[in-house]
Amino acid sequence: MTSLAMINAAAQRLDGHARVTPLLSSPFLDDIAQRRILIKPECLQHTGSFKFRGAWSALSALDPSARAKGVIAYSSGNHAQGIAHAATLHGVPSVIVMPADAPQLKIENTRALGAEVILYDRANEDRDAIGQAIATERDLTLIKPFDEPQVIAGQGTVGLEIATQAADLGVTTGEVLVNCGGGGLTSGIALALEAQAPQMQVRPCEPKGFDDVTRSLISGQIERNDQTSGSICDAILTPSPGQITFPIVKRLCGAGLVVSEDEALHAMALAFLRLKIVLEPGGAVSLAAALFHGHALTSEVAIVVATGGNVDPEVFQQALQRFS
Amino acid sequence: MTSLAMINAAAQRLDGHARVTPLLSSPFLDDIAQRRILIKPECLQHTGSFKFRGAWSALSALDPSARAKGVIAYSSGNHAQGIAHAATLHGVPSVIVMPADAPQLKIENTRALGAEVILYDRANEDRDAIGQAIATERDLTLIKPFDEPQVIAGQGTVGLEIATQAADLGVTTGEVLVNCGGGGLTSGIALALEAQAPQMQVRPCEPKGFDDVTRSLISGQIERNDQTSGSICDAILTPSPGQITFPIVKRLCGAGLVVSEDEALHAMALAFLRLKIVLEPGGAVSLAAALFHGHALTSEVAIVVATGGNVDPEVFQQALQRFS
Repeated sequence: MTSLAMINAAAQRLDGHARVTPLLSSPFLDDIAQRRILIKPECLQHTGSFKFRGAWSALSALDPSARAKGVIAYSSGNHAQGIAHAATLHGVPSVIVMPADAPQLKIENTRALGAEVILYDRANEDRDAIGQAIATERDLTLIKPFDEPQVIAGQGTVGLEIATQAADLGVTTGEVLVNCGGGGLTSGIALALEAQAPQMQVRPCEPKGFDDVTRSLISGQIERNDQTSGSICDAILTPSPGQITFPIVKRLCGAGLVVSEDEALHAMALAFLRLKIVLEPGGAVSLAAALFHGHALTSEVAIVVATGGNVDPEVFQQALQRFS
Repeated sequence: MTSLAMINAAAQRLDGHARVTPLLSSPFLDDIAQRRILIKPECLQHTGSFKFRGAWSALSALDPSARAKGVIAYSSGNHAQGIAHAATLHGVPSVIVMPADAPQLKIENTRALGAEVILYDRANEDRDAIGQAIATERDLTLIKPFDEPQVIAGQGTVGLEIATQAADLGVTTGEVLVNCGGGGLTSGIALALEAQAPQMQVRPCEPKGFDDVTRSLISGQIERNDQTSGSICDAILTPSPGQITFPIVKRLCGAGLVVSEDEALHAMALAFLRLKIVLEPGGAVSLAAALFHGHALTSEVAIVVATGGNVDPEVFQQALQRFS
């Protein structure tokens, strides 16, 4: 079970390897949101998403002899790139099981970062089963994308940085909007803030039609999505919150926020225009929630974790054509 | 005359007001450049370019009674936005004289940031004369875009950050590639590095057809461009290096680097893809030099100052369509 001590230890292992991303802001975005917005651009992290943190945390925590044999992961793309890059930097092999319909850019990058990529059919095959089988067959360590304590600890370092950086700006209270797939980042940040900024509350953000976490928080038990593909927000399309992450999310987070695909694209265009950062749709859901669902927020300050930027150029151009 | 002491004093005045931008990198860019590249993304600075630093430095150094009357500036857009925002934050009025053919986005932003904007014809009118006339008439303090010691001191804070951040990565030697218009940023960084990282050398970067600094460095005296419009690199189209900046550039900088417009667009597309940042053409010239003119560099490490990101969406889409 991930603790503050594990998050602090992960932060030490990440020091000098992961980037400390800044907090950005724009008076233009504050005007739209009608409140102060601070944006944590994890798209600027190595491999273009926060996932490098959890990947490095997990890799660096492995027993060296196990690590040397190699690791395996399954991922729609951002965890894939994080693991591939962290494994290559550690000098060990990696195998990544990716859905065949993942963005081409993410598949190519994962290969280029040094991984062996195995594609599967997201609609008809079970990635967990495939991952487990290959792990056993090749004696690789499976690093799960979110339901893994050291991964959660690594993602939690985002929360440590938010607490420090926001306090530097005089902000100690507010809602922290986090794009939520399986809940690794959401639960990690929530644990870090519980200790370091207890007046901040995490609000999980999801795309319409894939609001399993929002519904789980309402019912109090793990709910599933009917589908796991068919949204441009590919980075956060997991079937359900995790067995490890959900109890943390349930204990610490406020209600979920759900945005449309068009709102995510609009937020991408505004991030281009006002922040000069590149977000992917699944990385812009939290910004969309802050900008277009302010009625559902209660704080004067919203801190937005902009989780990733690995978007195909065509999708990005679509956002600019329609919303800039 | 700007000194290290003035740059350090500017850094103190900027503390908590300007952003400390991180140093970014990508193994994909290192592969293209065939050397290590570190990128300082000043597009993430307030108002989308490094110009906010010089603007804040100059505004904050003014005598309070003079400052209260207001300031005036002339600028193709980035200095304009920097001054407008810094003046509004200081609670004083600003007037900005801008070329009528500046990117629409920059004109609109400057107004939205609180300035009164006066447009002029870049080809047929003299912005210096217009600026001086209005300054006298309304008793405003003119803040020149580059030939102004406190502006140079503010831009020099980029150099202080580079010295510290590169040293943290173990880098103390290398060429620092800086987009160069009038030379305010180039001279400020060169002065800071002379003191803080003397084994680094600044290389000014310019677009083809507007290589006044490169030619001035060759001839040893101030040379002028034949034209001051007609390039997408609008941010750095000044007629010639400044009277104050050129002697500093001449004393401290290596030879200039000149890139084509297509190379700047290509660098924009690669910054989108690999760094997840938005650059304008004039802000991407230095990255283009590192990526496509490596034969003209001599160091193992190139530090690229990516100076701004205020680009119209149409131009950005053109870069993606052609080069991604």
